[in-house]
Amino acid sequence: MTLAGRPPAAALVFRTLLVQGPLTRAELGRRTGLSPGAVTKVAAPLLADGWITELGRPAGERASGRPATPMAVRAERARFIGVKVTADELIGVLTDLTATPLATRRAPLASRDVDSVVRAIARLVTRLRTAGGAAKDGAAKGSTAEHGAESPGGVHGIGVTLAGDIDARAGTVQYSPFLDWRQVPLARLAGAATGTPTVVDNDVRALTVAEQWFGAGAGLSSFALVTVGAGIGCGIAVDGRVVSGAYGVAGEAGHLPVGGDRVCTCGNTGCVEAVAATHAITEQARQATGDPGMTMAAAVRRAHAGDPAVREVFARAGRALGLAMASIANLVGPQRIVISGEGVASYDLFADAVRAAFRAQAFGAAAECDLVVRPLPFEAWARGGAAVAAQQVFAP
Amino acid sequence: MTLAGRPPAAALVFRTLLVQGPLTRAELGRRTGLSPGAVTKVAAPLLADGWITELGRPAGERASGRPATPMAVRAERARFIGVKVTADELIGVLTDLTATPLATRRAPLASRDVDSVVRAIARLVTRLRTAGGAAKDGAAKGSTAEHGAESPGGVHGIGVTLAGDIDARAGTVQYSPFLDWRQVPLARLAGAATGTPTVVDNDVRALTVAEQWFGAGAGLSSFALVTVGAGIGCGIAVDGRVVSGAYGVAGEAGHLPVGGDRVCTCGNTGCVEAVAATHAITEQARQATGDPGMTMAAAVRRAHAGDPAVREVFARAGRALGLAMASIANLVGPQRIVISGEGVASYDLFADAVRAAFRAQAFGAAAECDLVVRPLPFEAWARGGAAVAAQQVFAP
Ligand SMILES: [Zn+2]
Ligand SMILES: [Zn+2]
Repeated sequence: MTLAGRPPAAALVFRTLLVQGPLTRAELGRRTGLSPGAVTKVAAPLLADGWITELGRPAGERASGRPATPMAVRAERARFIGVKVTADELIGVLTDLTATPLATRRAPLASRDVDSVVRAIARLVTRLRTAGGAAKDGAAKGSTAEHGAESPGGVHGIGVTLAGDIDARAGTVQYSPFLDWRQVPLARLAGAATGTPTVVDNDVRALTVAEQWFGAGAGLSSFALVTVGAGIGCGIAVDGRVVSGAYGVAGEAGHLPVGGDRVCTCGNTGCVEAVAATHAITEQARQATGDPGMTMAAAVRRAHAGDPAVREVFARAGRALGLAMASIANLVGPQRIVISGEGVASYDLFADAVRAAFRAQAFGAAAECDLVVRPLPFEAWARGGAAVAAQQVFAP
Repeated sequence: MTLAGRPPAAALVFRTLLVQGPLTRAELGRRTGLSPGAVTKVAAPLLADGWITELGRPAGERASGRPATPMAVRAERARFIGVKVTADELIGVLTDLTATPLATRRAPLASRDVDSVVRAIARLVTRLRTAGGAAKDGAAKGSTAEHGAESPGGVHGIGVTLAGDIDARAGTVQYSPFLDWRQVPLARLAGAATGTPTVVDNDVRALTVAEQWFGAGAGLSSFALVTVGAGIGCGIAVDGRVVSGAYGVAGEAGHLPVGGDRVCTCGNTGCVEAVAATHAITEQARQATGDPGMTMAAAVRRAHAGDPAVREVFARAGRALGLAMASIANLVGPQRIVISGEGVASYDLFADAVRAAFRAQAFGAAAECDLVVRPLPFEAWARGGAAVAAQQVFAP
């Protein structure tokens, strides 16, 4: 069951409460443009089915109609599972409707074979259902008819995310370089194995959805997320929607041109990723120090110890990232850019160069765009999957 | 009078007919997701008020309800005037509802003083009204109540466009470098002088709106327009809306980083505009040839005559434009990029370099983005103003 069968105003009221709530009926009317009467009419079935609730209503008073009683989304009304697939493990999270984690589980991947990964996803989902079992009754509240449509364990939906070229609409992994998968109908396979409706999405896109509804992008007209790590990822949300691209490509900030003669994994020269991805930093640090065995961790230590050549490698990466963020700001003008990913663990080594390049290249008022660093652990990536699954409910 | 007071489904039906029409009721239902009954209900007042019409209905047959009768927008139902302000002249166009020009007039600007420009706009509007007078009765058809709300000459609205930082919502020219205006409430002033509701917008943004509804972007999920000339302009439409930017800056493709050591008008080094704008090409051609008096026209002639140094100046500009378009494709993934502006008169000198740089830098399927060259005369820029004014009617 979703809000899909209800009038558009119901989804609008629900989404407004989700991002801006709790709100009184009067305030909800102002923010949605609906009349007080329309708000009350639309809210009634949502209240009855337990999707929203009235806060602090004095005992004995009637449930509806008082414009000053704040209403809020009932986060416990529905549960979701997000699973992030990496090259060697699965990270899973059970969440409520607002993608707040209730339980987290990890599982190593013995094989990258499709069947074996699907079975591992199903086992992880079972463990998460079990972990959430105690609170199951609470999650299942609501009308009996709706509860009947839910899958075992009160889980409404599952979102599986991974890096690569994903056709979210078809539920297909078009190409995953790290799993070496092509044209895998993962949504259908995982849905069958778990007995629960499953969606599939690109991991960075899913993280952007999570941040858009429940994170650093909540309530903003537009924002972008840039992830720094093994690759440079990026998601862009405009008018409350994550941009997908007419040909399935969007947010490829890693392949913006920033000059230089380093060759990128895409075959081109001068991409951001060729300077700022983890492997690129390691390679440049090896060249700068003459130490062919230097790891990323060692490069970070050496830069923190003050080695000017290694510090310059990080500064160069920071400049490339700052130029990429300025390109995003100049073209799309987001209210905020969130910087995240494994790379932000050593963000102090990039920060000055990012900011200087951004300020120099951002045009006019575009420089007012807020740059926010937000460390997101791997569990947050799994949460992205849960957010994409939850979005099916309120923004189908 | 606009469609603003009508239900959202009315605007949806109208916009679908505008971009994709003529369509039968059945097809309209399929494309909008409305039931046949809802289409008929929504269409009835639009038919009655003359906004849409039924095509080829056999004489004597009843007007409504036959699902197989195609419906279309009545372009003659409303008229608009667009005025483009340049440094030394005004270009005005009278159009119908689909921004199709009915008359064009130009007027030199004797002064860049605000009052004098506003008076010149009012005189140009009067001339355009007069030019359109013969067809006035046709334009005024529809219900009497609505006609009563129209301004003299049957003109629904005026759109004035110019380069610079424009706050379209407030109707204010925040900053126009070429007029040396700051904080001029041009919409209010021109509205008062003409007696007709007037909107103001940035000229490139307005041209993007015109192309989105009535040009090379019609019916596309997303597209971008890049104009090449005195500056490099850009508008980006996503999900049927032209992106505006949270801080009023978006589509600043001219200030994307493409490397090189040339200083841009924005103060930064390495911007697209510093290599590819007319003044930048002229300067580089002067350096390349040692001829300090060389004009753009002379540079074009010399390149056409085969001078390798001057041809390389155009190729360098083309590479910068190709990289900028690839950045747009990688971040936003438009279905099509339209290239226009004065510069496309000599586009043959850029073309190969644009295409090569675009293909090299566009990531994966983003390279499938359609690059279309479309010469747009100055009248087309004026048409942008009419499109922005017309948009107030069907997409308020
Ligand atoms: Zn690349
Ligand atoms: Zn610049």
